[in-house]
Amino acid sequence: MKRHTDREYEAELSTLRERLLLMGAKVEAMIAASVKALVERDSPAAQRTIEADLEINRLELEVDEQCLRVLAKRQPVASDLRFIIFALKLVVDLERCGDLAVNMCERVLELNQEPPLRGNQDLVLMAGAAQSMIHDALDAFVQGDADRAQQVIARDKAVNDQYGEMVRGLLTYMMEDPRNIYRATRLQSIGKYLERVGDHATNLAEMVVFMVKGKDIRHPGSRSP
Amino acid sequence: MKRHTDREYEAELSTLRERLLLMGAKVEAMIAASVKALVERDSPAAQRTIEADLEINRLELEVDEQCLRVLAKRQPVASDLRFIIFALKLVVDLERCGDLAVNMCERVLELNQEPPLRGNQDLVLMAGAAQSMIHDALDAFVQGDADRAQQVIARDKAVNDQYGEMVRGLLTYMMEDPRNIYRATRLQSIGKYLERVGDHATNLAEMVVFMVKGKDIRHPGSRSP
Repeated sequence: MKRHTDREYEAELSTLRERLLLMGAKVEAMIAASVKALVERDSPAAQRTIEADLEINRLELEVDEQCLRVLAKRQPVASDLRFIIFALKLVVDLERCGDLAVNMCERVLELNQEPPLRGNQDLVLMAGAAQSMIHDALDAFVQGDADRAQQVIARDKAVNDQYGEMVRGLLTYMMEDPRNIYRATRLQSIGKYLERVGDHATNLAEMVVFMVKGKDIRHPGSRSP
Repeated sequence: MKRHTDREYEAELSTLRERLLLMGAKVEAMIAASVKALVERDSPAAQRTIEADLEINRLELEVDEQCLRVLAKRQPVASDLRFIIFALKLVVDLERCGDLAVNMCERVLELNQEPPLRGNQDLVLMAGAAQSMIHDALDAFVQGDADRAQQVIARDKAVNDQYGEMVRGLLTYMMEDPRNIYRATRLQSIGKYLERVGDHATNLAEMVVFMVKGKDIRHPGSRSP
């Protein structure tokens, strides 16, 4: 009987893990699709990506319910407990990334009503960097690899710098010609969304380190003395 | 012995509750201070608010650790378990609100290097609305009042509308005179941050409903059939 229960419990944890990865993969795909819709000026694709967010929201609710069930039924301790906490927090970040992809697509729909403006190339690079941060944070989670997670954290600065540079470029376009202003503010918003995807990937990676090492590395310098 | 343990457990939950409220009060104060620093062009005050965020980060870590301890030691069920889950998620939203106040103050520091521009009044109104949403969501939490939480959720649309209107006004300033562009994009960012504070308050309120009713009202329409 005990062994049977253990096997059931193991299966519950592994379903949970798979659901988190599925959610992560879908969020990654949404980010890639958003920036593709931008470059190809493809409004129907942007619309489809907006609709895909419903699936992400559904996955968040499912993960939360599953965590609650496991906590109530199994009363996990030690690393299993840390995993459940991780899952509860991870879905918050992934769900926000889904929302950010929706926001990107909303800006794409607006931009597609206007003639094209330079500035996409920066966003393609930023999207690639942010998406790979999400991917590698989830990989680090699967592998239980704290070093890999630390590398993800270190990459956030580059995305922030890319954003800062892009903002300066867009400011020049706006100064050059007031007809650029509306579109430039849209591109700037998309850049900001991608910069925030990088922040969420950083949160994920910090939580992976916490889960693996049982040590919280968020907010260095803010511990009580 | 049993009674002793129960009393200890009660005290742990009530410390946790107090810490959440303290964190909420500090976040509210940061938002109010940010917009005051904007209006009064007070860079030292903006700097102090940026520093106050360390305290918010510290409180997040403390709450997380405390939740983990309660989960491991007490294995709470039913409404106590929902409260712990609520606490773990609530600190994510509050901590992000603290970050948004920091971002506001960073923009204030930039704006204070430039001559003043119209547009503050919209931000004062938005800040008041967003801050009172946070306040009332936490009040609804303390009272266990799901109706009050629902009212907070209903107010988010007004903040979003205020933001949309403000963006249109700023676009006009930018078109009028290119010298307004840099400052207008800063004001727009502050508006966006406040709009996101409203989103976080909505998350909090949805979680209060969940905690009180045991029913998840997030993402309506995205449940599996």
